Amino acid sequence: MHIPLDRQQDVPLYLQIEEALRRAILSGVFVDGDKLPSTRTLAAELAVSRLTVDNAYAELASKGFLRQRRGSGAYVLHPGTLPAQPQPTSDASFPAERFTTLTSRLDGYPDTPLPDNIINFAAGVGSPRVFPQEEFRKILLSVLSRHAEEAFGYGEYCGYYPLRDTLGRILTAQGIPTHAEQVLITNGSQHAISLIVQSLLEPGDTVIVEEPTYAEALGLLRLHRINIVTVPSDRHGMLVEHLPALLEKHRPKLIYTIPNFHNPTGRCMSEARRRRLLALAQHAGVLILEDDFVGDLRYNGKQLPSLRAQAAPGAVLYVSTFSKMLLPSMRIGYLVADSEQYQQIARLKHVDSFTSSNLIQRALDAFVTIGRYDKQLRRAGRIYRQHRDAMITALQQHLPHGCHFETPEGGLFIWLTLPAAVDNEALMPVAWRHGVTFARGECFYAREQHGAHGLRLNFAANTPPLIEEGIARLCRAINEVIAAK
Amino acid sequence: MHIPLDRQQDVPLYLQIEEALRRAILSGVFVDGDKLPSTRTLAAELAVSRLTVDNAYAELASKGFLRQRRGSGAYVLHPGTLPAQPQPTSDASFPAERFTTLTSRLDGYPDTPLPDNIINFAAGVGSPRVFPQEEFRKILLSVLSRHAEEAFGYGEYCGYYPLRDTLGRILTAQGIPTHAEQVLITNGSQHAISLIVQSLLEPGDTVIVEEPTYAEALGLLRLHRINIVTVPSDRHGMLVEHLPALLEKHRPKLIYTIPNFHNPTGRCMSEARRRRLLALAQHAGVLILEDDFVGDLRYNGKQLPSLRAQAAPGAVLYVSTFSKMLLPSMRIGYLVADSEQYQQIARLKHVDSFTSSNLIQRALDAFVTIGRYDKQLRRAGRIYRQHRDAMITALQQHLPHGCHFETPEGGLFIWLTLPAAVDNEALMPVAWRHGVTFARGECFYAREQHGAHGLRLNFAANTPPLIEEGIARLCRAINEVIAAK
Repeated sequence: MHIPLDRQQDVPLYLQIEEALRRAILSGVFVDGDKLPSTRTLAAELAVSRLTVDNAYAELASKGFLRQRRGSGAYVLHPGTLPAQPQPTSDASFPAERFTTLTSRLDGYPDTPLPDNIINFAAGVGSPRVFPQEEFRKILLSVLSRHAEEAFGYGEYCGYYPLRDTLGRILTAQGIPTHAEQVLITNGSQHAISLIVQSLLEPGDTVIVEEPTYAEALGLLRLHRINIVTVPSDRHGMLVEHLPALLEKHRPKLIYTIPNFHNPTGRCMSEARRRRLLALAQHAGVLILEDDFVGDLRYNGKQLPSLRAQAAPGAVLYVSTFSKMLLPSMRIGYLVADSEQYQQIARLKHVDSFTSSNLIQRALDAFVTIGRYDKQLRRAGRIYRQHRDAMITALQQHLPHGCHFETPEGGLFIWLTLPAAVDNEALMPVAWRHGVTFARGECFYAREQHGAHGLRLNFAANTPPLIEEGIARLCRAINEVIAAK
Repeated sequence: MHIPLDRQQDVPLYLQIEEALRRAILSGVFVDGDKLPSTRTLAAELAVSRLTVDNAYAELASKGFLRQRRGSGAYVLHPGTLPAQPQPTSDASFPAERFTTLTSRLDGYPDTPLPDNIINFAAGVGSPRVFPQEEFRKILLSVLSRHAEEAFGYGEYCGYYPLRDTLGRILTAQGIPTHAEQVLITNGSQHAISLIVQSLLEPGDTVIVEEPTYAEALGLLRLHRINIVTVPSDRHGMLVEHLPALLEKHRPKLIYTIPNFHNPTGRCMSEARRRRLLALAQHAGVLILEDDFVGDLRYNGKQLPSLRAQAAPGAVLYVSTFSKMLLPSMRIGYLVADSEQYQQIARLKHVDSFTSSNLIQRALDAFVTIGRYDKQLRRAGRIYRQHRDAMITALQQHLPHGCHFETPEGGLFIWLTLPAAVDNEALMPVAWRHGVTFARGECFYAREQHGAHGLRLNFAANTPPLIEEGIARLCRAINEVIAAK
């Protein structure tokens, strides 16, 4: 086997070997089940120590490209090969005593690692496998090699200007005319919402939210002692006809909404309601906060105009993130605001946490500018669409009578409604025993009990075979609870 | 010239060539003034394109290892060789209209890049040159290669546990017994202070600070409408004898102090005063926030016991950072707190910004655990001590009668006091014309005018020759202002 090694390189030899083998597997030089040379043979061939080859193989195995059998050797696992599916064990007892916090109910499991045999539909993020890690790694490396000194400094308070400019251009291309000066980089979109709440609201102020809504927004508002007033929603989003009375009665400062691929419901607000919402808010002089956390992850249907794009300057604050489509660990989100409000939020950001990581911002800018954002969007859309369709097919096949769900046109989530006879309190331990978990609807309601029959299912983060198995388990669990009534 | 190139590698060829040449220069294979082969010759030798060699040379030049003379070739610049000193230009007019914000007065220049000919003593950070970028880059690369999937996830809300554990061990070794469970990772130490202020204080609460104090803490407190009550300080820190009356009169919730290498004065609070402060705060039931942003950057004298180390549980919150000794762009700071307070702050952090960059935390943990922290601390200490001594020598040589300064035993700053006849308002434009800038004392005082005769000079961020030249310029400027009176 020929593997070119560079002993002058920074990269350790075992990683050079690992990479060469990984490329060979990915390009089809090796196929599933092929036996690799013994570590002794390969070490001799490459004139390296056996330990080096051992480490390379261990690395490959940890990445799932290799199965090592003691005494028998190392066998290629092609990434197309599915990992063994987690099997439900009959003794998986539900750790009820650990499910006491909001987080555990939202995450679908307590603060410990999730047991291997549980399929997790609770995640709030996409799949790390969709992210082009290799490409991003190369870019990060190149930023480190070429601009280390600048990338290692504080950078600008409002964010790395070229990245703000890039974001402005992407948003403009998506129909939201935006200038770099209106973009403020934050440590994730939660941070953007937090800065807005802190700088524009006071304890005791009122905010209107659609119900259900993003659990962590509710948590943030509660912690800052903001009064939360809810508007019901249906499959076309917020029921805006309730707004006039609520605006009149509660005199809110802000309306918080997720018009696209809503968290947790996956719904999109209809165009007519968007227009009505804007008109009502403008008439009442109330600010809108548009949370567009996965607005560009659309799999079918037509794009709806953003609230911000249709509003007067200063009327709509816009928040989004790279975490969902790219990587959670970037911790880079952003907000778009106008002059006065922008200055006020930027001043707070400055004293709150100075700057966001300059290194990550520069890498992100290099990654995003060179046409990769669109490519990545298409790639993520293609994969997540398959995941969504797999979940819908499985739900259609297995879902008990009395349950229903809506088909989202994008995003990460499907919202499932249980029949009146079944609630999350009863379902969750049974589902756990069957080997599946989910985000409980209660987390998304200001009055928690209103969410007792709703489940948020993440279809993006799992592969289709796991989705199918997980939905089958979930439906068996629902049937078991129904039967026990 | 033999340069081994690996065409299978991720690293572009020009960077491989650049690195090989850089190593040759650093290891003394080439010395200052050596002429490198022409791009044509080297390209032929290495069987690469001329453009590749051009790029490698450009990279070396941008890093200061090479001087390229048009038509004459490329000459090695040994890093020991000083760059040409910025020359004051007679037409450097002071852009007064841009110096309107607090930030510009603190940063010593408006929001534009600082002109090349101005020597900057205003920085709040150390020198990026002191940071082992190469080592850190390798570690980041290795984290990306080996743990990409985990490093790219959200990670834990309170921070990556091994890093919290490492920090606990470092603090314990420094005399502050700390368990991982007491460490909360934040997006820099400013963020740590911000989370504490937000979760433990209310608008209208009172905080006692020593005067002068950290400008950004004042900004944060003001923005959250906290009443600020000041205690004067002298070269042994806060004048604690004023505390009883102030505690009685203002019933503060918190005392904020920087006991080690204070920002902006560089002072350390004496041991006796530390004990008195603790006793008084405990008696009054007032919380202490100990900001130890560069506590371990000591160049001489003996280490003083931390406030937190001597206090009862729950009495002192402790905040520090990696930004000053390592890199600002990490945006990783931390706080140490006990049970109830910890939970309260952690809840806020969760809804404020979820997690801090998992990738950077993992890299930092890998960097810090393997004995590098102490090595880096010694290295930074050795270099910064030289910088401090260079500034002191220059001040002793040039400082006009009536000015005085104190010699700090560590940290980043020297505090200079002007004679009564000279204030910053008059000095700054003249200093700018002479080619030097500084952080104006007003930024560090609750009542700004009290700082009109103080200057914060950063000795860490510049090299000794620049420090010497900069101080000479500053002193000429002071003399010019005195003469004009």
